Formats: sequence, C-alpha cells, structure tokens
Amino acid sequence: MERESPTHLVIMISGRGSNMMAILKAIQTGIIRNVVPEIVISSKANAGGLEYAKQFGIPTVVFQNPELREWAYDSQIANLLDDLGLKGSSSLICLAGYMRILSKQFVDKYNMRIVNVHPSLLPSFPGLNAQKQAIEYGVKVSGCTVHLVDAGIDTGRILMQKAVRVYINDTPETLSERILKWEHIIYPKTINSYLNANLKTKMHRPV
Amino acid sequence: MERESPTHLVIMISGRGSNMMAILKAIQTGIIRNVVPEIVISSKANAGGLEYAKQFGIPTVVFQNPELREWAYDSQIANLLDDLGLKGSSSLICLAGYMRILSKQFVDKYNMRIVNVHPSLLPSFPGLNAQKQAIEYGVKVSGCTVHLVDAGIDTGRILMQKAVRVYINDTPETLSERILKWEHIIYPKTINSYLNANLKTKMHRPV
Repeated sequence: MERESPTHLVIMISGRGSNMMAILKAIQTGIIRNVVPEIVISSKANAGGLEYAKQFGIPTVVFQNPELREWAYDSQIANLLDDLGLKGSSSLICLAGYMRILSKQFVDKYNMRIVNVHPSLLPSFPGLNAQKQAIEYGVKVSGCTVHLVDAGIDTGRILMQKAVRVYINDTPETLSERILKWEHIIYPKTINSYLNANLKTKMHRPV
Repeated sequence: MERESPTHLVIMISGRGSNMMAILKAIQTGIIRNVVPEIVISSKANAGGLEYAKQFGIPTVVFQNPELREWAYDSQIANLLDDLGLKGSSSLICLAGYMRILSKQFVDKYNMRIVNVHPSLLPSFPGLNAQKQAIEYGVKVSGCTVHLVDAGIDTGRILMQKAVRVYINDTPETLSERILKWEHIIYPKTINSYLNANLKTKMHRPV
C-alpha cells in the first residue's frame, strides 16, 4: 500500500514545536514512512521549534504579521507552498502547536490535507486551554485527538484518540504533560496511517 | 470510614434495569457496603426490571402518569419517600435507565444524593442516544460516566469515568454493549466509594 512518490510534509508551529520534533524523529526512525519534510512555517519569529528545524536541515519561514487576518495572512502561506510546488494532493500540512485559526479559504484549498493534534478527547473541550477546561469541568478521563482540520474550531474528522486519566490532584500543567507524552506517540503514528495505510481498515486500530 | 447506620437506597428505572441488577448484585457480593435497597420506582408499568426487583424482595412502585410534568410528577415520588421516612441525608437515589428528566424542585430536595450513569464520556454526548451520537461524530474513544444529578441534562459533578474504545465497524448497538459492561462495573463501585470512602482521596483512583 506504499505510495510510490513520497508525501511532502509542511509543519506549522508557533512555539517550541514539541510535536514537530516528535514528527521529525518519527521520520528518522521509520515510524512515518515515505515522507519528506519540506518546510517549517512559524507564526512567531521567536518560536523555539525553529532552531530545532534548522538543526534538522529543514528550511524555515516566519510569517509574523499578527495584523493580517484570515486569508490576508494565510494567502502568504498558500503562495509560498505554490512557489515550492507543494500541492494539497501530494502534501500534508501538520499543525504542531500552531496558534492561528486557519481561514476557510486555506482549509478549502488543502481539503483533507491538514492534520492537527488537540489535547482533549474531542468534542469535549475544543479551543484554547483544553487541559484547564478539563480540570475545571472535573472529568476523570481526558486525552488527545488527532483530527483533520476543517473551518470550525477543532471540529474536523477524528482520525485517532487516546484516553488519559485525570487525577484529583492534577493541575493543568501535570495533565498537559501526561497528555503531551501521548500526543507525541499517536500524532506521528496517525500521520503514517493516514498517508500509508488503508484508512478504512487501519485507522481504528489501537496505537 | 464506614457510616454506622446504613444508607437507604432508592433505585429508579424505566426499562429492563440492567444497572439496577448490577447494583443489587454488588450489594449481595459486598462491593457496595452498608446500604439497604428500600424501593424500586419505575416510570413505566411494563419495565422489565420490576420483576427482577420483586425476585430480590424489594418493594416496587410504578408512577405511570406521562401526562404529569416536572414537579407535578416528581412530587408523587417525593411524597412516597417522605412517607417511607427516606430523607436525602440518609438515602441515595440511583437512576438506572430512568428516562424522565427530574425537576429542579426534586433535584434541590435531594441535593448531592442522586447519582446516574451515562453512556458517554461527559461532557461529550449528553442526552438521549449517546452511543449513536458518538458513532455519528466519529470518535475513537467513548465510555461511561457516573455523576451526581443536577437540574441540567447530564451536567452534574462527575464522580468516575471509564474510557472504552470505539471501532470503525461499531454500530450503536455494539458500542452500547461494550460500554454497558463497564457501566455495570463502575456504577456500583462508585456508589460504594461515594457513600463509604473519603471522596477527596479515593474518587480519583482507577476502578
């Protein structure tokens, strides 16, 4: 079921990019097969992940124009990807702590080709500070979700989820840490399954 | 930490009452300690669980007045419990597939003394057909939640949750069955913990 030509990976970050690191390591170790990381795009010039991407030899681009909204901002990225010859059909855009909401135009252009990992069991606790939301609600189980990105806030099709216990003395920080470990495991595995496996038969398997 | 006098258990059903059976078995086997099942109340005359309750030697009462709404209906139950000398402070009302929504007056009268089990990981998929909602949303993890009942729909304080996998070929029926097995395990255990353990230190423990 391997594709002949590799998928071009675009990784979008805003901070330290720990999920970006997990993806890049998974490519090195063969957990993600048949992909080439092409570029790392950051919405912040001081994103810690940029340095790590450079060490990995991956080109980085920063678009720090917080004054630009929606497609006015996103068209910069789309134009860059066009210039690099990266089409949605042969690419995958992986959001890794990317803190901007993507415009409908961008999501439509890369329909089914944008993935994200979110630190809750969606549809519970979409949006910002999901772990804090979970603690404040008082759930005993939370987790993480890998999903396709659509024009809503964390509403796209779910590809994989992992449940994580919440303990009574958890803080948003301790819960975030416990969930993040699993994000780093299921996000790369799910990217590989999404690209290289028969989705219908494979995506339900436990990771 | 055992209470000296046993807690009086009121179980409310509308159908086969499989969670009622799980509770009664757990009392027999000592999983729930220091309680006396006092009465089973059904909102349906043909509820299958009524027969089982009788076999267990527990009095049953049916209030089948679907035309009565809110407190007009619930006051019948409150009056019965008053007549039986069952106060909120020394009783626990366990909903077990009870299909009516409790009025604010009833919930206030038995504040913190009504528990329910719901077949999803709340706050995802409250209300009816939670398993069908989960399948249609496409989650990969669902589960069940034991919670206190407040005036909202499945919004009360969560006492315990158990995550259950959802497989790609699941139907609402196969998922319901998988979740129900865990309802039968965590609901009795949580009732016991709620009544007999130090909630703050024990309720977070895995079941």
